[in-house]
Amino acid sequence: MREATQDAVSRVDEDRLWRRHLEMAEIGAIPGNGVNRAAFSSEDIAARKRLIAWARSRGFSVSVDDIGNLFVRRSGLDARAAPVMTGSHMDSQPRGGRFDGIYGVLAGLEALEAIDAAGAKTQRPIELVAWSNEEGGRFAPCTMGSAVFSGARPLAEFLNVRDNEGVVLRDALRTTLAATPDAAPHAFATPVAAYVEAHIEQGPRLETEGKTIGVVTGIQGLRWFDVEVFGESAHAGTTPLNVRRDALCEAIAIINALHALTRDGDDALRFTVGRMLVTPNSPNSVASHVLFSVDLRHPDPATIGRLGDAVEPTVRGAVRQCDVKVTPTLRDDPCMFDSGVADAIEQAAAGLGIASMRMPSGASHDAMYLARVCPTGMIFVPCERGVSHNEAENAKPEDLAAGARVLTATLMELANR
Amino acid sequence: MREATQDAVSRVDEDRLWRRHLEMAEIGAIPGNGVNRAAFSSEDIAARKRLIAWARSRGFSVSVDDIGNLFVRRSGLDARAAPVMTGSHMDSQPRGGRFDGIYGVLAGLEALEAIDAAGAKTQRPIELVAWSNEEGGRFAPCTMGSAVFSGARPLAEFLNVRDNEGVVLRDALRTTLAATPDAAPHAFATPVAAYVEAHIEQGPRLETEGKTIGVVTGIQGLRWFDVEVFGESAHAGTTPLNVRRDALCEAIAIINALHALTRDGDDALRFTVGRMLVTPNSPNSVASHVLFSVDLRHPDPATIGRLGDAVEPTVRGAVRQCDVKVTPTLRDDPCMFDSGVADAIEQAAAGLGIASMRMPSGASHDAMYLARVCPTGMIFVPCERGVSHNEAENAKPEDLAAGARVLTATLMELANR
Repeated sequence: MREATQDAVSRVDEDRLWRRHLEMAEIGAIPGNGVNRAAFSSEDIAARKRLIAWARSRGFSVSVDDIGNLFVRRSGLDARAAPVMTGSHMDSQPRGGRFDGIYGVLAGLEALEAIDAAGAKTQRPIELVAWSNEEGGRFAPCTMGSAVFSGARPLAEFLNVRDNEGVVLRDALRTTLAATPDAAPHAFATPVAAYVEAHIEQGPRLETEGKTIGVVTGIQGLRWFDVEVFGESAHAGTTPLNVRRDALCEAIAIINALHALTRDGDDALRFTVGRMLVTPNSPNSVASHVLFSVDLRHPDPATIGRLGDAVEPTVRGAVRQCDVKVTPTLRDDPCMFDSGVADAIEQAAAGLGIASMRMPSGASHDAMYLARVCPTGMIFVPCERGVSHNEAENAKPEDLAAGARVLTATLMELANR
Repeated sequence: MREATQDAVSRVDEDRLWRRHLEMAEIGAIPGNGVNRAAFSSEDIAARKRLIAWARSRGFSVSVDDIGNLFVRRSGLDARAAPVMTGSHMDSQPRGGRFDGIYGVLAGLEALEAIDAAGAKTQRPIELVAWSNEEGGRFAPCTMGSAVFSGARPLAEFLNVRDNEGVVLRDALRTTLAATPDAAPHAFATPVAAYVEAHIEQGPRLETEGKTIGVVTGIQGLRWFDVEVFGESAHAGTTPLNVRRDALCEAIAIINALHALTRDGDDALRFTVGRMLVTPNSPNSVASHVLFSVDLRHPDPATIGRLGDAVEPTVRGAVRQCDVKVTPTLRDDPCMFDSGVADAIEQAAAGLGIASMRMPSGASHDAMYLARVCPTGMIFVPCERGVSHNEAENAKPEDLAAGARVLTATLMELANR
């Protein structure tokens, strides 16, 4: 590891990084150590102002684009070079935790400050970005800011979205932008040399395997289905089993078959039935109708494609007396991150003596859209028991700092390539 | 078959019996050929008045007890002999059919009229009874009238029961009794020589096996349980399957184990999971809690006892990462009917050349309580596809008449023993 990089990494301040998490957690604090900081809310505005204040105190320039993505820039030697970008989001789930999203923003700021404190020169500028409305908890869909910045979706598509109180996104966005009038304008779809996002894992693998850094190889593909089983209600006491058309009994046979289909020695596949609605849902009536959800995820495009396509035939093969209907409700193809960025993260961790492992991301992130426009990677740090989207979300100061150190070294490497 | 019995049977009038079903079905008629005739409602009162009018037109005496059980009596040669009783109920499920309950009342009336038309003398009186509130759809629990008449439960226990609108049973019962002021008082727990109840099967066995008469051997035993599975909610995308505590996944494993426990080549056992509630019931969240019902029935006391007792160990043996709680919610031991009454029914059918088969009842009936106080039996007739507790409930006029003929012959035999 180059000396300038080592110097920058040594400036990462675990206490400052932790303290900033606690300060940000005051904005929208809810009982149980949780955070409710909806996109384009007064809490979001307060978080933006705090971030801008920290950035300005270090002399970084601040800009904002028309969907409110907030950029903090440390100049490089080549002012015209595309920046290396890092960041995540500051909005939260309605009952979210203190680390989801905000960690990537604060780790990015910490990296910029550490690099700056070391007086390190980088060829490319480094830009921290806080993407607007990643969670989508107030205004659907999620990852809106990165989708618009990357050009995947036009801003106009989202301006008329309403929240549950009837507030139009256009108005909430206007209020948000007006609250930070001193931020310079930033265009959409500006060239990006590379993007690295730090995030809590939101799963238990790092903790379970005793690793501090997850080198994220991509975001797994997702297939959603609703399966409906149509049977016939009958008296539980009088109707022999061999003449029943028991929708719940057959739903279970179908789920057994889907379990067999998705059995996976590597435990890489995620198969979840999380929702089930039974009609008439009475102890002494055979069920006439069952609806259940299938959530299937895998990082490998061929695997998720094969298994997703096998869902309906498997359902039909398992059904006996009932009728079935299989409705695909969502499909996200796997996103593969750039191997060069992953190598840079892995080497940074190795150079710092921090244990890492390669892993796919189970959840979606803004990096999914950035991967369409530039070499992209993610750095995961452990969170307690993998709990996320929950007030109980927790992480250790030393793990957050380790992630910021690996991020710092990675940005230094990428900004000098 | 004795000549008097043959004469009485020949007086059973299929058209009259069918017409009376249609007339009764007008009272509380709902769309789709259904009936909503709740206990102690104005519809119940209208049905009582109609029954009393038919009884009086034939000169039968009418009486009523303090829970509204309505008795129609044809005298026997020995006025002090305990009567042979027949009947069923006139109340219906909220979305009930045209035959459940009312058939046993109208078949009993048909038998009394046929015997009377034949001028047959019987040693014992024959009493038709319309039991109050068999369904329990408005005022829980069910089979209330027969429970109180038989002395199994005191009337006082039910007087303060309220319906969903807050009406107290005491008041609804008072209104009902006041509506038939000319009915003489009838005591509870009067001696009964024998009881025979005719009813639609409410299951498909007679239809499937091509028999017209079911000679009911008893009412099967019932064990109910609520099974709760306690897991932990987790992100469906990020949480590996091997660290999940997936309450729905384990509920299914438990149900699979219960299916294996209750596998039954004879198809005599009834095992039903009809109710399932999933929390949080979201497609991308691992379920944290599942509650499901177990309804287990079998006519053999040893079998239902053994299987019922095996439910909790089977549940505990099938669970892996979750916690479970098994709560017994209902237990009715099997009720065995008197073999002498069954023989009388079977011989009556054979004497009339009507195909019969012995079978247990899957559902509960008022006969369950009468069996505690006198030799008891039941006569089942087929209903279309076994559908009951449903507007679509249907039966054939000729089957209803066949059941009334067998009932007539059986009552003649029992009343002359």
